[in-house]
Amino acid sequence: MITINAERLQLSLSALAGIGRCPGGGLDRHFGSAADLQARRFLKEMWEKTLGREVQTDAAANLWAEAEGSENLPPIAIGSHHDTVKNGGMYDGAMGVLLAAEVFKRIQEENIRMRHPLRLVAFTGEEPNPFGFSTIGSKLLSGRLTPEKLKGSFDGEDGLTIEQALKNAGGSFSELDSVRMAPGEWAAFIECHIEQGAVLEQRKNPIGVVEQIVGIYREEVLIKGEANHSGTTSMKRRHDAMAAAAEIVLSVENTARSFTDNVLVATVGKLEVFPNSINIIPGEAALTFEIRTADNSCKEKALEMLQKAFAQTAGERGVAIDRKTVLDQPATKMNGTVISSLERASRKICNFLPGMTSMAGHDAAHMAAVTRSGMLFVRTPGGKSHCPEEKARLDDIACAGNALLSAVLILDKELD
Amino acid sequence: MITINAERLQLSLSALAGIGRCPGGGLDRHFGSAADLQARRFLKEMWEKTLGREVQTDAAANLWAEAEGSENLPPIAIGSHHDTVKNGGMYDGAMGVLLAAEVFKRIQEENIRMRHPLRLVAFTGEEPNPFGFSTIGSKLLSGRLTPEKLKGSFDGEDGLTIEQALKNAGGSFSELDSVRMAPGEWAAFIECHIEQGAVLEQRKNPIGVVEQIVGIYREEVLIKGEANHSGTTSMKRRHDAMAAAAEIVLSVENTARSFTDNVLVATVGKLEVFPNSINIIPGEAALTFEIRTADNSCKEKALEMLQKAFAQTAGERGVAIDRKTVLDQPATKMNGTVISSLERASRKICNFLPGMTSMAGHDAAHMAAVTRSGMLFVRTPGGKSHCPEEKARLDDIACAGNALLSAVLILDKELD
Repeated sequence: MITINAERLQLSLSALAGIGRCPGGGLDRHFGSAADLQARRFLKEMWEKTLGREVQTDAAANLWAEAEGSENLPPIAIGSHHDTVKNGGMYDGAMGVLLAAEVFKRIQEENIRMRHPLRLVAFTGEEPNPFGFSTIGSKLLSGRLTPEKLKGSFDGEDGLTIEQALKNAGGSFSELDSVRMAPGEWAAFIECHIEQGAVLEQRKNPIGVVEQIVGIYREEVLIKGEANHSGTTSMKRRHDAMAAAAEIVLSVENTARSFTDNVLVATVGKLEVFPNSINIIPGEAALTFEIRTADNSCKEKALEMLQKAFAQTAGERGVAIDRKTVLDQPATKMNGTVISSLERASRKICNFLPGMTSMAGHDAAHMAAVTRSGMLFVRTPGGKSHCPEEKARLDDIACAGNALLSAVLILDKELD
Repeated sequence: MITINAERLQLSLSALAGIGRCPGGGLDRHFGSAADLQARRFLKEMWEKTLGREVQTDAAANLWAEAEGSENLPPIAIGSHHDTVKNGGMYDGAMGVLLAAEVFKRIQEENIRMRHPLRLVAFTGEEPNPFGFSTIGSKLLSGRLTPEKLKGSFDGEDGLTIEQALKNAGGSFSELDSVRMAPGEWAAFIECHIEQGAVLEQRKNPIGVVEQIVGIYREEVLIKGEANHSGTTSMKRRHDAMAAAAEIVLSVENTARSFTDNVLVATVGKLEVFPNSINIIPGEAALTFEIRTADNSCKEKALEMLQKAFAQTAGERGVAIDRKTVLDQPATKMNGTVISSLERASRKICNFLPGMTSMAGHDAAHMAAVTRSGMLFVRTPGGKSHCPEEKARLDDIACAGNALLSAVLILDKELD
């Protein structure tokens, strides 16, 4: 069995981790930043030098390189993203891109002539960034984001328009329509990524095959109570929007806790209180909550429970609660053929966990709209991600690389 | 019995209410604003024209005018403040200043020769303002605020240093030390003010005599949990600072509710969450809570209850809670002689409620440090204050005016 060169991979991981380093030890290669551009130059040079391939940049500034296939078939694509969140870690995204390049290199070194072209991809702006859009590259490819929607978005921190940011990265806003893929343009896409959660660690598996990517539901909630003097307003006369918000925060948490762990999570990440003054009973509070689950019936059940909690808070406290759904993105199933190839490949290599649900969104979720899409997860010690402490063990990464390599060859044989 | 001229008072109330009107119908005469200066000109002109008295402005920009007494005695002072909160009402402060001027006028009209000088006062910056200090004038007089502490404070909204604001209002920062009063410089001080609460309304009393001004205890609380991905972090692995803050908000409310209504109130007015991002479990939350009660043992009991609640939240959620006391101002007793004069005066005029606790702070609380201080409250329909809907009935105000007039004459006779 052909295996990847883990030492070489370690070197490229360390090299890319040197780009965008923050004073606190984390990485910042958010889309549009100087470090993003530097990482692109690094990948381009590496792919051209070590793979001997010309690197293409599409209008969305996605980077890609391709080895031709022996038959007239669509490419099998592998890769991930090279950008990071602010103060992020060195594995999220980067590991998937570099692992794909290593697999690409090993296939070359072994002189394997694939039937399908093999395409290496590094997507643009997967992480949240100052433009307010994430998974920009894969959404543009899949048509889930239109140039019209993106137009006018501005990175106030770096003083960049989206047009400038794309141009700096080698893309072209005016030609964005050209990148939209037709279904079937690729034969398949596989992304390797750190899990970011602790399921693989708990289950003592180095890698896992993703069956589905979680659905995300988000609501903006505005609570209107009555601002009043914090001294002269007795407790009985209050309509405290902050206290109502606090009840809602705990209702969201309790609702999620009533489900089996990992089946559904819910979070209030954002809360603003008005007038937010020490001696005024808050008159208004605005919060956003999020529910994530792969099971639509669980989402519906959670929303029913929350509806009751909202009504009770509004009734008991004499406050008005306005709710607005801002996202209702269904779960995405990974492709059965790709899952099967990853499972068969993994079986030969190590213990692996099948049937995983990704609780985070990924480029692979958007690519599923236009191609057979699959994901392989790598164990993340402590489940820590999006922080400087983010880790992955080289042994586990090597398992994923070997499984990816093997799965690509299985798909190359079986897909037409 | 001499009574005030309610029609004349109504006219002056309406005139002052025309200064600082906001588009939404409220008033904004915060310290340092153009409307504050306009109100000062209005008062000066009115006092000089209708009372025939030269108006003095001390270094703290407090306005005062005085009628001489027949004996060599310290003055009896009456008054309140003319500034307002932003989007405030027309009675808070203004009523007390204009009522005092009306009483002053009636004593003149009746040719009553008082033994003590009668002093009319309008204090500087009683309400919260962009400089971050309230009750500025009375605190400087009583020594509870030093020029050093005030130094460097800046009104970012109006682009004013405290030095400029005081100068614009006729004061002088460099001479602030001169305003500090020695105990006994005044014989007494009485402030009439709207109640701002609903106790007088509930008890069907037009006016009430204040026995004490509430103590205020404030803490800044910092909760440190763990920021993490809102999707990949299962509910069991979370250390959500927002959820911990929500528990604390409800603990503060529940603690206050466990006391008899109006004996103790507690409020979380301010909360900030970090990073306050829709898809990140909050890692930190900072809140400020306040306890108000006139009974120190109630405060201690409430703090004990909260200590237990804090410990439970910290323990169950694995978050760190840092607490910092930022204010621990004890309750202030009003002077017994002044209370007695107000009660004897009120008894002849209308039903009144004795023994009231003011749940808000007032200039009279600070003046109590240097003189015999007392307060008379006027019923506030609906208990609404610090808002455009703030009201007081002219009949009730007239009762307060008549009681004030009578109390001043009682004190003039009885005090030496």
